[in-house]
Parts: sequence; structure tokens; C-alpha cells
Amino acid sequence: MEAQTPIVDDTSLPSVAPKPNGEYVEELVQKARAAASRLASLSTTTKNQALLAMADGLIAQLEDILAANEKDLDTFGSSKDKQAMADRLRLTPERVKAMADGIREVAALTDPVGQTLSMQRRPNGMQVGRVRVPIGVIGIIYESRPNVTADSAALCLKSGNVCVLRGGSEAIHSNTAIAAILSEAAEKAGVPAGAIIFLDRTDRDIVSELLKQDQYVDLIIPRGGESLMKTVTAESRIPVIKHDKGVCHTYIDADADVTMAKQIALNAKVQRPSTCNAMETLLVHHTIARAVLPDLVNDFMAAGVEVRGCSKTLSLCPAVKPAADSDYGQEFLSLILAVKIVRSMEEAMEHIARYGSRHTEAIVTKDYGRALRFLREVDAGAVLVNASTRLNDGNQFGLGAEIGISTTRIHARGPMGLEELTCPKFVVFGSGQLRE
Amino acid sequence: MEAQTPIVDDTSLPSVAPKPNGEYVEELVQKARAAASRLASLSTTTKNQALLAMADGLIAQLEDILAANEKDLDTFGSSKDKQAMADRLRLTPERVKAMADGIREVAALTDPVGQTLSMQRRPNGMQVGRVRVPIGVIGIIYESRPNVTADSAALCLKSGNVCVLRGGSEAIHSNTAIAAILSEAAEKAGVPAGAIIFLDRTDRDIVSELLKQDQYVDLIIPRGGESLMKTVTAESRIPVIKHDKGVCHTYIDADADVTMAKQIALNAKVQRPSTCNAMETLLVHHTIARAVLPDLVNDFMAAGVEVRGCSKTLSLCPAVKPAADSDYGQEFLSLILAVKIVRSMEEAMEHIARYGSRHTEAIVTKDYGRALRFLREVDAGAVLVNASTRLNDGNQFGLGAEIGISTTRIHARGPMGLEELTCPKFVVFGSGQLRE
Repeated sequence: MEAQTPIVDDTSLPSVAPKPNGEYVEELVQKARAAASRLASLSTTTKNQALLAMADGLIAQLEDILAANEKDLDTFGSSKDKQAMADRLRLTPERVKAMADGIREVAALTDPVGQTLSMQRRPNGMQVGRVRVPIGVIGIIYESRPNVTADSAALCLKSGNVCVLRGGSEAIHSNTAIAAILSEAAEKAGVPAGAIIFLDRTDRDIVSELLKQDQYVDLIIPRGGESLMKTVTAESRIPVIKHDKGVCHTYIDADADVTMAKQIALNAKVQRPSTCNAMETLLVHHTIARAVLPDLVNDFMAAGVEVRGCSKTLSLCPAVKPAADSDYGQEFLSLILAVKIVRSMEEAMEHIARYGSRHTEAIVTKDYGRALRFLREVDAGAVLVNASTRLNDGNQFGLGAEIGISTTRIHARGPMGLEELTCPKFVVFGSGQLRE
Repeated sequence: MEAQTPIVDDTSLPSVAPKPNGEYVEELVQKARAAASRLASLSTTTKNQALLAMADGLIAQLEDILAANEKDLDTFGSSKDKQAMADRLRLTPERVKAMADGIREVAALTDPVGQTLSMQRRPNGMQVGRVRVPIGVIGIIYESRPNVTADSAALCLKSGNVCVLRGGSEAIHSNTAIAAILSEAAEKAGVPAGAIIFLDRTDRDIVSELLKQDQYVDLIIPRGGESLMKTVTAESRIPVIKHDKGVCHTYIDADADVTMAKQIALNAKVQRPSTCNAMETLLVHHTIARAVLPDLVNDFMAAGVEVRGCSKTLSLCPAVKPAADSDYGQEFLSLILAVKIVRSMEEAMEHIARYGSRHTEAIVTKDYGRALRFLREVDAGAVLVNASTRLNDGNQFGLGAEIGISTTRIHARGPMGLEELTCPKFVVFGSGQLRE
């Protein structure tokens, strides 16, 4: 007799087969969608209480978080080439406290939901207004430090949005622990279940599955490297606001204040070179190059910066390495700087248009007309006169905390704070108006 | 000897082989991109002069447009089932004049480019502002009447955006003629070449090729039916703002003014049933149903509307046809209406959440609390109290002309006017500020 129906004692099976990743993602985003409308109409008080409870939860369960982080660090390894990355991954009591403080700061920010942006009376007597409402369900895909889990959950909750979080696999234990604590604390404080979803599988195709869920997810925010951006661009059926790379320039104009120019350039490069708003290329007008560059290059070198210059730069500063063509437009994210001497502001602006990533661009000048022209004509999320590119940041710009810096050209460019996590809806107060 | 190098007299060839569609699209969007920065900084005066010249051009070359339209109509045919569509396709001197008037109206609207949205002084002394800038290059894919070509070109030009237009194949001759006239008139008035691009090939894969051009195109606005929306969702690598279908409801509350309720419901259905903001389903509170429905159903029937009702509706209005489950949530776009009697506003809101397309939703009520709750909790681009859904429109809402009604949940929901075709960029007026 053939064994067409093998006899299996189901109760003896240790566990059922895991769901395929597609089903796993779909179930979670459906849960997210179901929470969205209740979260959207939650009171500011409840949201703030939840945020404070989330912050308290992180502190109360500090040991669990550190233990989970230890697992991640063990798996990641500690070979020499991995040290910088391991340091970003590492959580300490201070870092967890900073996370909790960040959440408390979000609780203190103004709730954008329900803000009236405009209200006008139309000729037929109806009042037409625009009111901020949450976007809905936001998928956030990130590769960075575990604190992004806490920051994103807090900003989404405050702005009435459900978040679906997908962190990097190297931080899976830390992120899972943090998300569980936040989610539990929020729920206890009256936030609907499903408002903070964390995707705890690390398979690569989880991202692809998430990008298909346009029925349930309203926006994808990817924060990460080139490969993530490529996947999202190619596959997403959901609107995307990218937080892509920053190839940022500082242009020192002929009429710059020399001291200010040197301070701004130095700050833009060395204050934190691994960030997207750090300067990657310095452009200097030829008439001021002799007054600025030799001193400034010395300062850069003293700060450990490797300077790669054009031939004119080399003739002024012989210690500088020659720049390759590929150095222009590169996001070094480290203590490397490309320098180019230009003949005019027009040449500087053309260089920026050609090599920049439309993230952050700055001019140093005392000339009023050129300052205004640079502000008007340079195409970037943020354009600065006489200030360091490093200031392009939600906190510095007065938005409060930020979910990142958008490089997409719709919805929001530059730092995205709470207001940028909402969208206006029209409301009409009528008294029987009809369309003629 | 083998004919490895066949002798061909190149000069005798009648024409070279046409470019593949991919190359054809890429060349045109590159041309568009190249025009974008010059167009973005064009003065309001030049843009307005160009718009007036474009309007004049349409009138001056009326005969050419009508001749091109005649070709489209001949190809399209005139069988009985095609009459409604042929009527939409048909251009008359009056319709061309209306197109020109529409362009003149856009010239009269305020230029959004350069508007300052906010400006604040930060603690470190720098002034941080947000200024409206054009989005860049906008691809508009449409299937509608030829006037969309003129409307889109005018709105994009005024807001400093390059447009890449792809119209329906049935209107190819009309659209090509209109676009050529507009483009020529704009260029003569000082607009950079490439600011108005029309894709004059009708092959289906042109849309797919366009959706790949994320390097050159910043936004895609699709206006059309389900199949277009599916293609764009699945294939676009470029951000998309959809102008998708409208399944709009009117809910007549227990406390509605009976006369007003009937007028609003009638207007919402019959004033122009083929539009996305026409009502598709009427929801009526059971305590007011007897006072409202029998009369209203008579009015609907007198206006030629086929009414499909729930069983309770049928018991009040025996002439009504029974509604199938599939009637709820359907976009009829014609003189068909689904009616349902509900027991509460909650049931009405649940019905709307389940079957609506988040486009336009209205309540008729005298109750203050329920009016505000409906406005707050119903999720749609526009929510109206005591007004017809047909009023959800850029002109009616005071935006001036509109490029359509967005159903996407980021950037802009509801009618999109000139301001919605821009995005803010940050500008910083500094005096040497550094990041601490």
C-alpha cells in the first residue's frame, strides 16, 4: 500500500512552518492600516503620555536593551575594519538615556495634527480651510544606529502616523528589544495596538515585500546607502521620500570675509565628516585663493583632512594631493576634501549643478547681489549664505527633531520634522452651497 | 570574395531608421531637464507674456487645430457607442477659445515661485526661511480631452516647471498641433526651448519608457483610468501624485435640513455625473429617511437617475431597484446612484471608510458636534459640511485653475493648483554661524 496519507501526529510537531515572508509582511501592514484611523484621531494628551511612558520604558528596561545589543555586537565581530561600524552599533547607558531624552523632546513639541493652514470665505459663502492630517502608515527602512528606531517611532506617533520599521540586520536584537518596549508602553498608555510595527525578520526580501504593499502603506522613507536607494527606486509601488546622499559644496566668493570663510569651511568639513551635510568639495574664487587657501589647507591638514586639489590649488599649496576627476561629486563621508579654484561664481554654480546632489550648498560672500543670486539660483534642499553646511538640520532650523533630510523634490525638501509628516486636507463649512 | 562590407550609397537612403522609443523618450526628457533651471528663474513678467502669446497662438491658428482634430475624429469613428467619447474629443471654435481663456486666467494668477512661506531667527542669529521653488520636470500622462494639453502646459509654465506631456492616442493630432503652437509661442516670448515637451509617439511603451527616467523627471502626474494607474504604480521609478477615481458619498444626518439635503444630494449627483467629485452613493439616517427619500428619489428619477437602494430604501420607495453589494464602492460616472439607509453616523462613517476612495465626502446636518466630528474623522482629500461634493475643485476652492485632484496622501491632497506645483526649499541668511 502506498503511503498516500502518511500518519502524522500533529500534536507532536515542535512548531508549525513559519509563514512565508510575503504573508508575514502583509499581516503586519494590515495591522498597521487598521490602527491608522484610531491613531489619527488620538488626543495630543494621550500621545504625549504615551511618549513619556515610552521614554520611561527604555530607562526601566535598560538592562534588556544592553543585553540584546551585546548579542548584536557579538555577532557583528570586532575585527579592526569593523570598529567604526561596531561603535555606531554599540549602546551604552548614556546612549539609551539620550534616546529616552529624544522621545521626551518630541513629547514637548507642538502637535501638528489639526493645525489650520488657511481658511478663506469663498464668494458663495462657504468657508474653505486646509487642516493638517497624518499621512497614514509610514514605512521606514534604515541601516543606521538603533536610536533611529526610537526617533522614528516617536516622531510618527506624535504626528499621528503608524510606523512600520525595518532596521538593519546587524542591529536586529537591539531594534527588536527597543521596538517591543516602545510598543508595549504606548499601548498601555492608550495608543491602539499596531501603531508601532517592527519587522523582526532580517531576510533581504522583506524590503521587497514591504515595497509592494501600496494598499496598506502610504509612504516609504528609506535612509541608507546607494544599494537601498536603488532597490527602493526600482521596486516601490508606494510613494517614496528619499533621504539620499549629500554631496555638499562651500563656495568662497571673491568678496568673502577671509576669516569667516576659513572658519565656515573648516567647520563644514571637520565638525562631523560622516554626515550627509558635511562639505565634500570646496570651491574658491581665484582672486581670493591666495589669501584663503594656504592657511586653510594648513588648518585642514592639522585637523587630519586629506586635501585633494586642482592644479591651481597645487601651485598655491604644494602639500596638497592632485584631485582626480572622480573626486568631484564624491561623497567621501570622511576626512577627505576636494578643492577647486574657479574663475567666477557662474563657474561655481555650474560645478554645483553638475556635481552636487541638491542637498546643501553654501556661499561665503560680503556681496549682497551675489548672495541673493546664489540663494535664488542654486538648486538644493537648503542653500546657505555665510553659514556652515552642517547647520542644515531639523533642530538647527527650528523644526524640532527630524526624521531625516529629504532629497526628493516633492512634499518636503531638506529636514523633515513633525509638520512634514503630515499632509493638508480640505475642510468645507457650507450652508447649502451647490455647484452652478 | 565574401561581402563583408556591402557597398551602400548612404545618400540614396530615403530616411534613417527611427530611433527606438527608449532613446526617443530619453532625448526629450534630457532636453526637458536642460531647460528646467533656466525656466525656474524666469521672471513672472516673461512667463505671463509667454502665456498670453500662447493663448493668442491658439486663436491665430484655430484652423490648423480644427483640421488636426478632424483627423482624430475621422480615425476615431462615429459609431453609436463612441458618441460620448467622440464628443469629448471634438474641438470647436468655442472650445479652442475656452482653452485660450483658460491660459489667460493662469497668466492672471499669482506666481507662486519665490513666495516666502516662513522666516524665523534662530538663537544663533541666522535667519531660516522657506521659499517656494518649482518641482522641476513634471511628466503628465492623460487620456482626457485635448484641453488638458493647454491647461497642463500653462500651469506648469506659470509655476516654473518643465512639462513632459503624454496624451491619449485618440487625440494625437489635436494634441500635437496644440503643443506645437504653445511651444513655439512660448519660445518666441523668451521661454527656454524644451520647456514644453510633447511626446508625439503613440506606442504603448512610451509610458513605460517615461516612467524609467528618474534621472531627468521629478514627478509623474497620471490622470486617467484604472489601467493607467496600475501601470504607473507598478512601473514608475519617479515620484507619483495620482489623480485617481472618486467614490464620493453624501451622508444625510438625522438632523439635516430636509430641503437643503435634497438640493445638495441632487446637485452632487446630476450637475455633472461624469466627474470624479460627483456623488456615487447616498447614505441617509433612518430617522430622516421617510422625510427625505420618497421626494428625493422622485427628483432623481425625473432627472434620469437610476436609483439602486438597500432593502429599507425599497420599502420606502418601491420604484427603486435593489442594489447589489457591488454597487457600493463603485464609481458609476453616470446617472446611476446607490442609496443606503444607515442607523447612525458611525455606520455612515464606517461605510465611507470601507467603500470610499478618500476623494470627497459630505455630510448634511444641523448638528454642530456631528458636523465637526465628521470633518475631523472622515479621511478624504476634501470633507464638506452642508455643501455639494461637486464643489471640490480648484476654482471653487479658490486655488485658481487646477491640474487635477490628487488622491495621493503626500505633497498635496485634493485640488492641486499652482502652489501645489511647487515645493519649499530652505534658505539661510547667516553671518558666520558654525555648528557647535
